[in-house]
Amino acid sequence: MTQASWSQLLRPPAGPVDLTAVDPRATPGFTGKKADGQAALLALEPTITDLQERLYAHGRTDGQRRLLLVTQGMDTSGKGGTMRKTVGLMDPQGVVIKAFGAPTDTEKRRGFLWRIRQALPPGGKVGVFDRSHYEDVLVARVRSLASKATIERRYDAINEFEQELAESGCVVVKVMLHISRDEQKARLAERLDNPTKYWKYNPKDIDDRKLWDDFQHAYEIALERCNTDTAPWHVIPADRKWYRNLAVAHLLVEHLEGMGLSWPPADFDIEAEKARLAVS
Amino acid sequence: MTQASWSQLLRPPAGPVDLTAVDPRATPGFTGKKADGQAALLALEPTITDLQERLYAHGRTDGQRRLLLVTQGMDTSGKGGTMRKTVGLMDPQGVVIKAFGAPTDTEKRRGFLWRIRQALPPGGKVGVFDRSHYEDVLVARVRSLASKATIERRYDAINEFEQELAESGCVVVKVMLHISRDEQKARLAERLDNPTKYWKYNPKDIDDRKLWDDFQHAYEIALERCNTDTAPWHVIPADRKWYRNLAVAHLLVEHLEGMGLSWPPADFDIEAEKARLAVS
Repeated sequence: MTQASWSQLLRPPAGPVDLTAVDPRATPGFTGKKADGQAALLALEPTITDLQERLYAHGRTDGQRRLLLVTQGMDTSGKGGTMRKTVGLMDPQGVVIKAFGAPTDTEKRRGFLWRIRQALPPGGKVGVFDRSHYEDVLVARVRSLASKATIERRYDAINEFEQELAESGCVVVKVMLHISRDEQKARLAERLDNPTKYWKYNPKDIDDRKLWDDFQHAYEIALERCNTDTAPWHVIPADRKWYRNLAVAHLLVEHLEGMGLSWPPADFDIEAEKARLAVS
Repeated sequence: MTQASWSQLLRPPAGPVDLTAVDPRATPGFTGKKADGQAALLALEPTITDLQERLYAHGRTDGQRRLLLVTQGMDTSGKGGTMRKTVGLMDPQGVVIKAFGAPTDTEKRRGFLWRIRQALPPGGKVGVFDRSHYEDVLVARVRSLASKATIERRYDAINEFEQELAESGCVVVKVMLHISRDEQKARLAERLDNPTKYWKYNPKDIDDRKLWDDFQHAYEIALERCNTDTAPWHVIPADRKWYRNLAVAHLLVEHLEGMGLSWPPADFDIEAEKARLAVS
C-alpha cells in the first residue's frame, strides 16, 4: 500500500454504482494469498490495539470522539465473521456491538433513525452496527415496507444524520460486504449440511435470495446516494473471508489514525503524586 | 490438571477467609513459567470459542441460559487486563461488558441491586461485570456509605439475588483478583512514569490504598459470607498477569463446559430447505 489508501481503493466512484462490475473474489490492495492475508491481519493487531487504546483513553478523559463501523451485506456475507476476526482484535471494553433486526412497533412509530440514535457509541468507544439504518432503504425498498416517497426522503435524512454524527465527533466507516450469488449458495448449503450450523440457517434467507437482483439494485442506489465525503461507502469483495477481514481491519486502522489522537495529558501534579505514592 | 478442578482449587474453604494466607504470586494448578502460561492461554482459545458459540447459538434459538463473570479487585489488580486478554478470546458478539462506577442518585434511590439487574446479560450471552454489587459491601463498608445494619442485610440480599439468577439459568462466576500491596505500588508507579498511562491514574487510588487493610478485611467478609455453592467465590493470585489471565480462562471453560450445551436442532425441514436452495 504505497499508493492509494484502502479507503480510496474500496470507495465506489461518484455516480451510478454497478455492483456486477465489482468482482467479489478480487483482493484490491493485496497481492498475497490466504495465508499471507491471515498473517497480515494478525500483524495489524498491535497497531489497531494501540490506536483503539488512544481512543479509549480519550473517552475516559471525557473526550467525545468515537468511531462507528456500519456493516451491511446480503445474508452469509460475513458480518458475523468480521466481528469475530477483525472487531475481535480490539479490546472488548472499548467496543459496543449492536445488531438490528426488523423494527418493533414502538421503533416504527418513533421514526427509523430513533433506534439508531439510541445505539450510538459513547465518547471513546468503537460502535459496530450489524445491519443499520440502511435496512430502511434496502429491505424497505425491496419489500415495499414504506412508500416510494418515504424511501426517497430517507436517503437525504441518512446523509443529514451522518453529517450531524461526524460534526459531533463520530467517524463513520461504512462497509458493504459484497459476495456473489454462488458463494451465498455454497454458504447456505454448508449451514444445511453441518449440524453445528443449523442455528444459523433461516428459511427466510431463501426468500431474500430469490430477490437477489432487487437487493443488489437497492444496494446500488444506497451506495450512490449515501456515498458522501463525510461518510463514504466502501464495497469489500467478500467471497474470500480472509480478504474481507483484512480490508475491514485496514479501514479501521486508517480511520483511527486519521483521528490523530494523542495520549491524554495528566490532569494531576505528577511529582506530587509520586511523593504521595512513595510514602503510601 | 488431573485432580482438582480450577474452581475447587481457587475457591476459599468455608469459614473465615484470611487473604494474607494467599500468596499473590502463587500459580495454583500450573507449574510452568510465564511463556508457558501465555501459550497455555492461547491454546485454550479454540475450546473457549467453541463453548461460547454453543451458548450463543442457544441464545439465538430463544434459550435463556447465560453466564455472568463478576470481577472484583483492588485498583490495578488487572480487571481491565483480564478483559483484554481472557474475555477478548471470545467472540465480541456474544459478550456484554458493564463497568460500574459510583452509583448515581437515581441508582441509589432504586436500591443497590437495581442497576445490576438492568445490566444482566440476555440469554446466550456472556456478561462481564467490572466491579459489581459487591462494591456495596466493600467500599460501602470501608467508607461507611451505608449503615452497618444495611450492609449486614446486603450479604443476604446478594446471596438471594445470586440464587435467583442461577435458578433463571444464569451461571455466576465470581473472581477476586488478589494482588499484593507492593505490586499495587509498582503498578501505580508505572502509571506515573509512563505518559501513555497517565489517563489510567487517579489520585483517589492513593486514598483507597491508604485503607488497604480495611479493604482487604471487607473482601474477607464478602468472600466468606457470599461463598455459596450456587455462586462460589474464587480468589485469583494476580501479581503474575499471565497466571491471572490463564486462571480466569480455565474458570470460564469449566463453567461453560458444565452447562453441557449441545447444538440447537434444526427447527425446519432440512431436506425441504436443501431442495429450495438447490433451485434458488
